[in-house]
Amino acid sequence: MTVKPATPPIPDIAQVAAAPSGTVIGDRHWYAIRVFYEDTDAAGIVYYANYLKFIERARTEMMRLLDFEHSQIRDSEGINWTVRRCAIDYRSPARLDDRILVESRIVALGGASLDIEQLVRSAEGKLLASALLKLACMHANGRPARLPQGLRKRLQTAESAPFTPQSASKST
Amino acid sequence: MTVKPATPPIPDIAQVAAAPSGTVIGDRHWYAIRVFYEDTDAAGIVYYANYLKFIERARTEMMRLLDFEHSQIRDSEGINWTVRRCAIDYRSPARLDDRILVESRIVALGGASLDIEQLVRSAEGKLLASALLKLACMHANGRPARLPQGLRKRLQTAESAPFTPQSASKST
Amino acid sequence: MTVKPATPPIPDIAQVAAAPSGTVIGDRHWYAIRVFYEDTDAAGIVYYANYLKFIERARTEMMRLLDFEHSQIRDSEGINWTVRRCAIDYRSPARLDDRILVESRIVALGGASLDIEQLVRSAEGKLLASALLKLACMHANGRPARLPQGLRKRLQTAESAPFTPQSASKST
Amino acid sequence: MTVKPATPPIPDIAQVAAAPSGTVIGDRHWYAIRVFYEDTDAAGIVYYANYLKFIERARTEMMRLLDFEHSQIRDSEGINWTVRRCAIDYRSPARLDDRILVESRIVALGGASLDIEQLVRSAEGKLLASALLKLACMHANGRPARLPQGLRKRLQTAESAPFTPQSASKST
Repeated sequence: MTVKPATPPIPDIAQVAAAPSGTVIGDRHWYAIRVFYEDTDAAGIVYYANYLKFIERARTEMMRLLDFEHSQIRDSEGINWTVRRCAIDYRSPARLDDRILVESRIVALGGASLDIEQLVRSAEGKLLASALLKLACMHANGRPARLPQGLRKRLQTAESAPFTPQSASKST
Repeated sequence: MTVKPATPPIPDIAQVAAAPSGTVIGDRHWYAIRVFYEDTDAAGIVYYANYLKFIERARTEMMRLLDFEHSQIRDSEGINWTVRRCAIDYRSPARLDDRILVESRIVALGGASLDIEQLVRSAEGKLLASALLKLACMHANGRPARLPQGLRKRLQTAESAPFTPQSASKST
Repeated sequence: MTVKPATPPIPDIAQVAAAPSGTVIGDRHWYAIRVFYEDTDAAGIVYYANYLKFIERARTEMMRLLDFEHSQIRDSEGINWTVRRCAIDYRSPARLDDRILVESRIVALGGASLDIEQLVRSAEGKLLASALLKLACMHANGRPARLPQGLRKRLQTAESAPFTPQSASKST
Repeated sequence: MTVKPATPPIPDIAQVAAAPSGTVIGDRHWYAIRVFYEDTDAAGIVYYANYLKFIERARTEMMRLLDFEHSQIRDSEGINWTVRRCAIDYRSPARLDDRILVESRIVALGGASLDIEQLVRSAEGKLLASALLKLACMHANGRPARLPQGLRKRLQTAESAPFTPQSASKST
């Protein structure tokens, strides 16, 4: 729908994995995951629901890098993130012992919600799955909550960050 | 996009649950699920990825009622079902000990794929989540496979079945 | 360690499955489970951690049959069940589409805890896994709680119930 | 049963986490895990079955450090690891966003099996859960397989490695 920005180079997975909360390069957050037996099914591949676990881990670590840890904003602000919508395309399966990368990018920021694109890639950068999610902030009583002001600012910065290829080298 | 068919009445969940593979009423398959601790998360609600488990259970039982059990078509025909796309909207959360219903309806049938709509409802019929999935038949080598002929016939019947409210009474 | 009671006959799994909370026969609770893709792993069998999900479902349904639903005793009494110890032997694997039975029997009842034996069997009664668990009642603050009086009575009855083979026929 | 070796100092979790396959110090393998929503349940703590996932990840990474990756020995030798027995004590719960450590130590090595002790600790070293497992090597047909010779040697070395406190500093 929007002009697709130039695809950034795929960072080295060993470098990404060495930073347990992943790495931000330009407007993308990169996070490395290893596929274990628990993730696979009898078809020999990662079970389709488990990609939603993978991308939630990546979102959680991205928020943590922005200093908005889930349990902390729940305890201090009384709000939780909720997924309102998730559309995911499965392109190619991941398998036991594979290392994969999750590439996350905020694509829209609303008053109480945000849209995020999350791509699951092989270590070599091959696209395995692509997801588009709408997340909302919710009070404990289920009512929508405005995004915490500090988070909004940090996300706006993340959203508008031009992709700067040279930042890939100073990643970790 | 298409004319929305009249919504069928919600069947009694106790009756649905008494049939472990669920119940077909008109063009819908109904399947009952209980929410256990394993399905919930620290926000006190069903974790978002677990709805994909719930609807996969329902699809599996629907196929079993049509005599196309997953392990049997894998062993006899060498084919597996693969999810190519899943778009899911989360409306209202399910919680520990809730009983929920999955309502499944085939909305399109291709040569090697099918589209299925799956709605997750509370026992009282309230919509909790709605999903639209594209499934494909695949050979073990990852190549697309045509749907087994017998299954295609049975699915076409299921797809075209007019919704007949009176069938609700002769359900089980 | 104690005299092993005579093994009861294995009930018909179709009858057990038709009762969504399972069936009590003598001093045993029987619960039927179907193995789905989500339960299996790339070795083609049920993933070892998932047996703990299966037996927790069975315990939950057994408690529900005794009128002590988890969410209800949490909300009304402020207590949760906690697993303190679980020792499980894996004998033979369950596979995709298998139907299995969980046989649960209370073996000891303390002031704030209970010991329960849970056997996972194939539909034909073959032993797949056997587990012995120690559960405790806990207040929300993590302190041990005495078992609710009504539950204690019902569990004592369940514990002492002599195994009566004729009850197998009037199961459901 | 055996003389308990002196407890090693708890390594710094940030250092452990920076090595995605964890770190070997003396006769112990240390592996860092972050607790995500997927791991927790409606009681607000890590669901009891998920500790079995955590310790399986740690075992997998320990074997990978020894150059015996699961998928590789399955494809080249036709053997899989199977858990025969797991006894786990739950001491104190882990919660959302916690970082935890898994400490693994081989305690016995048989012809076709090995016993491993796995301790789950908080980042500060507090014991959260302790498990003792018996693993066996199996052929695809379900028959026991002898441990690959190279692996046996490497495990014997790991098993007999005296705990050397000074090695903690040259960890990564």
